[in-house]
Amino acid sequence: MRKTHERLAKLGLELPAPPTPAAHYAPFRIHDSLLFVAGQLPVVEGRLKATGILGREIDIPTGQDLARIAALNALAVGYHAIGSWQYLRVAQLTVFVASDAEFYEQHRIADGASDLLVTVLEDEGRHARTAVAAPALPLNSPVEVQVIFGLINNR
Amino acid sequence: MRKTHERLAKLGLELPAPPTPAAHYAPFRIHDSLLFVAGQLPVVEGRLKATGILGREIDIPTGQDLARIAALNALAVGYHAIGSWQYLRVAQLTVFVASDAEFYEQHRIADGASDLLVTVLEDEGRHARTAVAAPALPLNSPVEVQVIFGLINNR
Amino acid sequence: MRKTHERLAKLGLELPAPPTPAAHYAPFRIHDSLLFVAGQLPVVEGRLKATGILGREIDIPTGQDLARIAALNALAVGYHAIGSWQYLRVAQLTVFVASDAEFYEQHRIADGASDLLVTVLEDEGRHARTAVAAPALPLNSPVEVQVIFGLINNR
Repeated sequence: MRKTHERLAKLGLELPAPPTPAAHYAPFRIHDSLLFVAGQLPVVEGRLKATGILGREIDIPTGQDLARIAALNALAVGYHAIGSWQYLRVAQLTVFVASDAEFYEQHRIADGASDLLVTVLEDEGRHARTAVAAPALPLNSPVEVQVIFGLINNR
Repeated sequence: MRKTHERLAKLGLELPAPPTPAAHYAPFRIHDSLLFVAGQLPVVEGRLKATGILGREIDIPTGQDLARIAALNALAVGYHAIGSWQYLRVAQLTVFVASDAEFYEQHRIADGASDLLVTVLEDEGRHARTAVAAPALPLNSPVEVQVIFGLINNR
Repeated sequence: MRKTHERLAKLGLELPAPPTPAAHYAPFRIHDSLLFVAGQLPVVEGRLKATGILGREIDIPTGQDLARIAALNALAVGYHAIGSWQYLRVAQLTVFVASDAEFYEQHRIADGASDLLVTVLEDEGRHARTAVAAPALPLNSPVEVQVIFGLINNR
């Protein structure tokens, strides 16, 4: 666990407080050995770090950074749900990228999220991933990530 | 179970017959303690209650009502799959909202679905949620909801 | 297992090598009795079979064929992950269809994927399905499929 925090620190990152859902749902739901995390936006201290569309207002490096922030929020939800890193495995990552109809690099944006998860959780951070476009996202967010964690050794 | 039906009745709602899939798939699939429900549209008695796009033909209150109807259909599938309310827990809800590229209130539309699930199933209705936009949905439906239920105490 | 390969052969299909992820994630992730497959594009021998948008460059029969190819790739990932057909059950299929804003036949495109899964895996190929539109997909792919398999008898 200390090591994981150290890996975050090396990236210049600190685990944020888990974002509060904006509406009538839960930040996460555990069922048996799965931890479903609510869709996460690139929110920092309660505010979206950017708004807009890939292929228009947002360029690829910015989009990758935003995906990384959204994935960090998902990690924060997972960590605070369990109180430890050692039971967390990333099972599935779905990345929605708000995109102009002629922007086809959703997978490169999603790499921002994938890389963070693998850097922080190493082997247990590897995951099955789907990257798709959306015409828009809540609050005009450029990206949204949906994570399903598997909980290890919990039976 | 009676209480759950009473909560529905208080909302002026009756549990519909589960919609029949329009194509070559199943209304639901159970695997171990998960019940995956097929994507549900706001269909009432076999017909879409409305067509169109949020931010254009469909306004927010109408969109919320349509999300509620789609979630009710997902509940109906879950209830009829198991024959009881008492094993059903909502694990994950994904709400797709057919949206104009400048409509950013997908989360408010999704509240229509979230509120219904929590009102009907109470604590077990709370869920991890993702709300995203789509440029269109099957049959020009304004919303589509995808639900994964967890089955309680079934091991 | 032999029978399953025979059913593929009757369709004129051969199970491809599982596509390699284009980025920093895994082709699949197994957690307990679930096998999450990364989003699959209609790639044949390392190249997208077509690019473009349904309702514009791509017509319905072509879209169905592309969905079938993407589903075949998901099957290939599942088969090679386990080394056998006999433990594979399709739990959930989500089909993303790159669509013009006035194309509403995503469910018909998704039938290409659903039909293949049911033809190859028969009863265990039946699944809960969601079909939605996206304004674009990675590499300008017309379709992308996300599959969650359940693993049978593995406890």
